[in-house]
Amino acid sequence: MALNFVLKTPRNLREAIDSFDLEQEGATLYNMVRDLYPICRSITGEGVRQSLRLLQRNVPLAIREVASGAQVFDWTVPKEWNVRDAWIKNAKGEKLVDLHQSNLHIVSYSVPVRSTMSFAELRPHLFSIPEQPDWIPYRTSYYKETWGFCLSHRQLEGLRDGTYEVCIDATLSPGYLTYGELKVQGATEAEVLISAHSCHPSLCNDNLSGMAVAARLARCLLQLPLRYSYRFLWIPGTIGAISWLALNESALAKIKHGLVLSCVGDPGRFTYKRSRRGNAEIDRVVELVLKESGNAFDILDFAPSGYDERQYCSPGINLPLGCFMRTPNNKYPQYHTSADDLTFVKPSALAGSFYQLLKVVEVLEANRRFVNLNPKCEPQLGRRGLYRTTGGTRTAGLEEAMLWVLNFSDGNHDLVHIAERAGLEFTVVNSAVERLIAHGLLATPTRSASKAGSHRAMGKMA
Amino acid sequence: MALNFVLKTPRNLREAIDSFDLEQEGATLYNMVRDLYPICRSITGEGVRQSLRLLQRNVPLAIREVASGAQVFDWTVPKEWNVRDAWIKNAKGEKLVDLHQSNLHIVSYSVPVRSTMSFAELRPHLFSIPEQPDWIPYRTSYYKETWGFCLSHRQLEGLRDGTYEVCIDATLSPGYLTYGELKVQGATEAEVLISAHSCHPSLCNDNLSGMAVAARLARCLLQLPLRYSYRFLWIPGTIGAISWLALNESALAKIKHGLVLSCVGDPGRFTYKRSRRGNAEIDRVVELVLKESGNAFDILDFAPSGYDERQYCSPGINLPLGCFMRTPNNKYPQYHTSADDLTFVKPSALAGSFYQLLKVVEVLEANRRFVNLNPKCEPQLGRRGLYRTTGGTRTAGLEEAMLWVLNFSDGNHDLVHIAERAGLEFTVVNSAVERLIAHGLLATPTRSASKAGSHRAMGKMA
Amino acid sequence: MALNFVLKTPRNLREAIDSFDLEQEGATLYNMVRDLYPICRSITGEGVRQSLRLLQRNVPLAIREVASGAQVFDWTVPKEWNVRDAWIKNAKGEKLVDLHQSNLHIVSYSVPVRSTMSFAELRPHLFSIPEQPDWIPYRTSYYKETWGFCLSHRQLEGLRDGTYEVCIDATLSPGYLTYGELKVQGATEAEVLISAHSCHPSLCNDNLSGMAVAARLARCLLQLPLRYSYRFLWIPGTIGAISWLALNESALAKIKHGLVLSCVGDPGRFTYKRSRRGNAEIDRVVELVLKESGNAFDILDFAPSGYDERQYCSPGINLPLGCFMRTPNNKYPQYHTSADDLTFVKPSALAGSFYQLLKVVEVLEANRRFVNLNPKCEPQLGRRGLYRTTGGTRTAGLEEAMLWVLNFSDGNHDLVHIAERAGLEFTVVNSAVERLIAHGLLATPTRSASKAGSHRAMGKMA
Repeated sequence: MALNFVLKTPRNLREAIDSFDLEQEGATLYNMVRDLYPICRSITGEGVRQSLRLLQRNVPLAIREVASGAQVFDWTVPKEWNVRDAWIKNAKGEKLVDLHQSNLHIVSYSVPVRSTMSFAELRPHLFSIPEQPDWIPYRTSYYKETWGFCLSHRQLEGLRDGTYEVCIDATLSPGYLTYGELKVQGATEAEVLISAHSCHPSLCNDNLSGMAVAARLARCLLQLPLRYSYRFLWIPGTIGAISWLALNESALAKIKHGLVLSCVGDPGRFTYKRSRRGNAEIDRVVELVLKESGNAFDILDFAPSGYDERQYCSPGINLPLGCFMRTPNNKYPQYHTSADDLTFVKPSALAGSFYQLLKVVEVLEANRRFVNLNPKCEPQLGRRGLYRTTGGTRTAGLEEAMLWVLNFSDGNHDLVHIAERAGLEFTVVNSAVERLIAHGLLATPTRSASKAGSHRAMGKMA
Repeated sequence: MALNFVLKTPRNLREAIDSFDLEQEGATLYNMVRDLYPICRSITGEGVRQSLRLLQRNVPLAIREVASGAQVFDWTVPKEWNVRDAWIKNAKGEKLVDLHQSNLHIVSYSVPVRSTMSFAELRPHLFSIPEQPDWIPYRTSYYKETWGFCLSHRQLEGLRDGTYEVCIDATLSPGYLTYGELKVQGATEAEVLISAHSCHPSLCNDNLSGMAVAARLARCLLQLPLRYSYRFLWIPGTIGAISWLALNESALAKIKHGLVLSCVGDPGRFTYKRSRRGNAEIDRVVELVLKESGNAFDILDFAPSGYDERQYCSPGINLPLGCFMRTPNNKYPQYHTSADDLTFVKPSALAGSFYQLLKVVEVLEANRRFVNLNPKCEPQLGRRGLYRTTGGTRTAGLEEAMLWVLNFSDGNHDLVHIAERAGLEFTVVNSAVERLIAHGLLATPTRSASKAGSHRAMGKMA
Repeated sequence: MALNFVLKTPRNLREAIDSFDLEQEGATLYNMVRDLYPICRSITGEGVRQSLRLLQRNVPLAIREVASGAQVFDWTVPKEWNVRDAWIKNAKGEKLVDLHQSNLHIVSYSVPVRSTMSFAELRPHLFSIPEQPDWIPYRTSYYKETWGFCLSHRQLEGLRDGTYEVCIDATLSPGYLTYGELKVQGATEAEVLISAHSCHPSLCNDNLSGMAVAARLARCLLQLPLRYSYRFLWIPGTIGAISWLALNESALAKIKHGLVLSCVGDPGRFTYKRSRRGNAEIDRVVELVLKESGNAFDILDFAPSGYDERQYCSPGINLPLGCFMRTPNNKYPQYHTSADDLTFVKPSALAGSFYQLLKVVEVLEANRRFVNLNPKCEPQLGRRGLYRTTGGTRTAGLEEAMLWVLNFSDGNHDLVHIAERAGLEFTVVNSAVERLIAHGLLATPTRSASKAGSHRAMGKMA
């Protein structure tokens, strides 16, 4: 399996972050999106398999399948849908709408049609956006058997009364729901779940961006020593997440944190939608990282609409998982239209998302509660070489961080809390921790779970 | 008993709200205030009985009496006071101040007087408002035996040195404290207490408005199927509420929510003063209803001054009861003066208060915690006809409400919480609940207490 | 022991506050600062002893000593340092820098030196402030044996290449760490700790101001009946506080509240830095007092830098102790320079700090939770002469305060909470309490601990 080593291999997260090449990584991510763009995806079918195989050039993900008809909680895995051709011709035989021009032209899960009909008969099967006359909308009909075409409003207006020949050469028959999965093994079995929906056809931001960034992040983490294990899913929206949760229900307790990645390629600012719990560690971690980024960002409370956080955060599942985005669904005009194309996503935006996620991982990995081993008064940092020897001057950053860590390490406050409260950068707080541990002044409440181990393993869940 | 059916009989609260005729109801309420206005009320006496009898034309309230001398907690029910005539004449025998001109002229509970005296002797017994020279103040002396007259400052200034003949033809003797009570029987014995003070003489907003609105609300609820029972009190301020609480102490645990109604007829915006608990269900319900009204309103924290919430929310009673007002006591210049008259209260304000109270009752009746019966991932709403079949489009209001209800119905969040958090109208959330229950997706945590039953019963407390 | 009675002896805190003479007290405090100013202090040595002896003219504090080498938690009490002379002479024998011009010229804890050296050799031992060319900085080197001089940047610039004669006639040898302690005995053994660091040389605001104000406060409290005992410490920063805590660890549970006093003589507004607990009673008390002062003030959250709250609020000690200041350390340019001199502190500022501290003590002494003995409805205040007899009028301040106290005295809310919530002055709330107690309407939950006792005792801790 030929892995594509773009980054010089860093030895740990900090090096990965320090050596991060925004331009090169942007190009890599953009090329991945560009390669995935032409494939006709849906919640099942060859397009999904093809996309996952393409991602396998970057990461050794496993392709898994669930058979049509499988019962997953309240749902049934649907038949597999594949489309070979779809068009509308006028009486002269001219193709007016053609799947090969845009994957969005076909309503996803359309049943096969081959028929000649009047415009009046055809009209109810046509979808356009009058307000955006040049854009093709994205429509699906997964659970009601029907057919339809999406087209630009200008195309629709070009259609006159007359007869049209309509062809949808598709199959809807027992098969599989396909998804990609990769576990990056860390020192512990405690897991971080990263999920990107992979079912949308040629829409770049929603969600080729998430698929690509997840792949690059997984690729990078495979090289690094990690405390947590990281489980990545490239999975069809809704039915995919539900299937995975149903099949892996007994192992969900391992998941300590998680993120849904979507719409991470547009040039808008970052948006983080909190987990249903609202103050989970992942929520505090992402907020700290975005705060430290120095750029404006938005924090949204959990709402049960959006992406697969709907399933991961359903009340009976309730994982501590938020949604990491740039501009959220429904908040950009190009959303769910043909304008969410290769011009809408930007290399720098893709790479910037990856970079912030690396920082999220860094904080997650380092974040813990420690215990001050010398809790009565300050320890004498000076005689350990941890403090300036000339008094009367102002406390410097690292000294200040040591004082904060010592004071609040009573087993109740984690480092994210301390960094937030102290107004210090997380990396400074973390450096203070390392120095204090090295001098025997700080320890984890239970020492067993504290060592960051090594890496590089892939395996099935459970 | 001839009930005055003004509303066409609605079958439930929603119909009562939908068919609410603001103009007609305003006229009805205003006429009630107008009829009550001339009666000379105090905390005891014929004026109270007469007022309650007048209300009986609208609602079958029971008139109850507590004998003078009864011990009620730290208080003793006072003697009954009645006044037939009261005036001040000058030396020429001209009546300068005359009870029959305004009930406010007499200090409530004045002892009988028949005497001729100098202005110097008279002066300490006269009360006016220099800042409002045309208005007569309202004064009482329930618990210290004295006498006095209230008059406009202009009247006072017209008095010169000279001798005056003073007559107060009043009786203060063992009798009764009188109040009105009505229980509207609902499906359960859990009660909502609605209390309006009935002791003030000719003051329209404070509190003929509350007395009339309470009567119309009771009248309306008598026709409707209800979950809760509703207990209405028209009761003298302080001593009345204390008496009722003392006599009904053993049954107070039934009271789950409550409202004091006062000053609900002026054209000012709504004010809700929270219960002592501060976050009782009634507090959240009223705030949601006022928020949904779309108009500005004020929320006040509990304070131990004001109306009978002072007693209902005393620390040893501590009922979850707030105070529903328009402009609060002391916050309008007409307060406790003759300017709180028939021109100060407005039919539309009275009817608007009634209308908001109906909505409060609607939310109270419907508000519960539910349990999602399919809590692992979303249930498939589409195959139940509860969700749009064409995907890729935006979630509509009712679908969104269903998602919110499903996600937060874990037994910990009630519908008011969900509506607040979702930013959706309560009725939409409630419709979602009804649809989900109908499809077996939602239930009350304990099913026994959940049926809304029928109605129309009056009875004694306990 | 000749005590210097400046105040006419008040009988209680209220009288002490009412008779407080801002001008006279300002003069007294300023004179104390002036007398302490010339003494060369450090964390050990004769300067500390001399300073404490000077304070003994005001208060009968005990001078205590801990031997060099004593192990106190993670620290060791250092050798005692004394300096007799220190200067730099140029080749002509002219003294360019002279300890007798300013105590700040010597780096505290400098080891003895007698040597002639080039400017290049001397330069690393010289400290100045280029941004403030006329000010001498304050520097220490307690735990690293070295030597140095502080001088104005203008002096430094006057030094040319050439040879200099350097003399530091100091001793650093086994001796003692010295501090002052005074316990003002109250009716109970529950203690309030007041601590002022006493180690800085000629710096007036930091902290001759705190030393003087603590002394005057102690002096005043000695005359008054008190509920709490008050323990005052004049103690070297860091090592002093650590030593005291280590030596008195078993008695720390007695300390119920505490304040570090520092920088209380500059004309800036008050700053209160909360205890580590953040909502300790002392935090709420000081905030209320500052709010009632009517002047702007700042509240800071706890941070583990600053003064001896670093030790008192270390996680294993965690006393409910905040830091009472005017302008905080590092927040005024004169901080830790020779400009923190007798012109920087003001008599009125010193006296104003003392005054606010008296009010803090007053609130602390009076603050409790009470229990309404008549919790069911309001008690009838009128028949006890506690309420106006004419009704219809507005509730006055004291009546209002009685209603608030009665309503919230359920054993869960203290008077500070009630005053805050009611928006009433603490003294009014306290007057209400006194009246209610006198009428048998209010009591402390457990009566035993409620009597304020008498005073005037000094003793050792434990």
